[in-house]
Amino acid sequence: METLTSAKNPALKEIRKAIARGGLTERGLCVAEGFHLLEEALRGGLRIEAVFVTEDAQAAVTRLIGPKRITLVSEPLFRTIASTETSQGVLALVRPPAWKLAQLFGPRPLIVALDGIQDPGNAGAIIRASEAFGASGVMLLKGSVDPYNPKALRASAGSTFRVPLIAALEATAFVEAARDLNVYALLPGGDQFIHAADLTAGCALVIGAEGRGVSAQLREASRGLRIETHGVESLNAAMAAGIALYEAHKQRTR
Amino acid sequence: METLTSAKNPALKEIRKAIARGGLTERGLCVAEGFHLLEEALRGGLRIEAVFVTEDAQAAVTRLIGPKRITLVSEPLFRTIASTETSQGVLALVRPPAWKLAQLFGPRPLIVALDGIQDPGNAGAIIRASEAFGASGVMLLKGSVDPYNPKALRASAGSTFRVPLIAALEATAFVEAARDLNVYALLPGGDQFIHAADLTAGCALVIGAEGRGVSAQLREASRGLRIETHGVESLNAAMAAGIALYEAHKQRTR
Repeated sequence: METLTSAKNPALKEIRKAIARGGLTERGLCVAEGFHLLEEALRGGLRIEAVFVTEDAQAAVTRLIGPKRITLVSEPLFRTIASTETSQGVLALVRPPAWKLAQLFGPRPLIVALDGIQDPGNAGAIIRASEAFGASGVMLLKGSVDPYNPKALRASAGSTFRVPLIAALEATAFVEAARDLNVYALLPGGDQFIHAADLTAGCALVIGAEGRGVSAQLREASRGLRIETHGVESLNAAMAAGIALYEAHKQRTR
Repeated sequence: METLTSAKNPALKEIRKAIARGGLTERGLCVAEGFHLLEEALRGGLRIEAVFVTEDAQAAVTRLIGPKRITLVSEPLFRTIASTETSQGVLALVRPPAWKLAQLFGPRPLIVALDGIQDPGNAGAIIRASEAFGASGVMLLKGSVDPYNPKALRASAGSTFRVPLIAALEATAFVEAARDLNVYALLPGGDQFIHAADLTAGCALVIGAEGRGVSAQLREASRGLRIETHGVESLNAAMAAGIALYEAHKQRTR
């Protein structure tokens, strides 16, 4: 087994850069920290390119993926690549799935479009809810956080490895792709209550960032839906998305 | 107007301590940072004990609450008390409402009980959703985050100032208080689907922390409800709570 001792090792430098940038490495690999995400990547059938482990984690990771592709890293050196304390001495480089736009549309599409969601925790929670409630695809429009941002990936609890998704999509490309769908935007001032809308046909749900909301271009291309609430100006963006997806899923499985 | 220049001023020391501890000050005051929370405190009819402002924010705060109770603080000194960059040069000390347990029960109670939720963002989002969907009260059981933690308060978007809530409640006291209610716990392996449960009678919804889940004591005192999902082990705790509250609200307003 290879053992790394130099902080200048190119692989470790690549990882540090990706974490600092909050996205994929230069070779297009996803940095997955912790046992849970490694297991989720395996469960998703993704290619594990390399795993860096501390001595404490070595045996458990070897049981998971065998001795190949594992590199032992000293404890202090590992701390220079781990972005969180929850990494548990395990950091994998994973080849993310490369989805084509057409793969996000099933026979009855349910697309979730993130319009400027920059909070990685919210983006990850929305991707997780998208899988949970059977969305056919997630589109992260330009200006939204990278789904492979370490915090977003963690908040997705591994759903990012399985839900068909496209990142950094232009708003115009989204509108074009969704032309045959009912496009709804979640807006605190939307015309129609979501529980009264028919979400059973192919549709797209546009989720805007808190504060700024859905962009003017997308508001124009969509019908406004709102969740009936009292007292508050709005809900947390991820929560609003989760409720909309729950409602769509309930209508579609009845 | 009083102008503070000393970092050793007792009021500023009190604020720094409260922020470090993540809760109320020793005098039981809530630290509310930023214009939005100050406005929400005013809207909730809360007593503003003092407001510390930088020169940039002074005029706007004076327009809101008049010149009394405002203390000007130099920019560098202000940075020693502000916990976030979103404080916008405004930090208020607010007297939080003191709720009695009985005030959390309306004619048809809908209680949200947080069991060990330590993430302040999740706790705040749940308090916000509790107001939005008409919960009669929120109980934060021992082991959960302080609702006046600055991050929790921010995530609540001010709902913490309005929703009747009790913090640091013993689990036994919760069970006793909820003895006449239908007590449900949200569990990924719950017996009943939430959309099939009748949430129209007086009820309490117990929300456990992700990972650890609902405590054994409360699982025993409640019926398990689950949200129908696919592929994922669970949902984000705040999102699950929001969906349960949405469902309860929908049933109760039909």
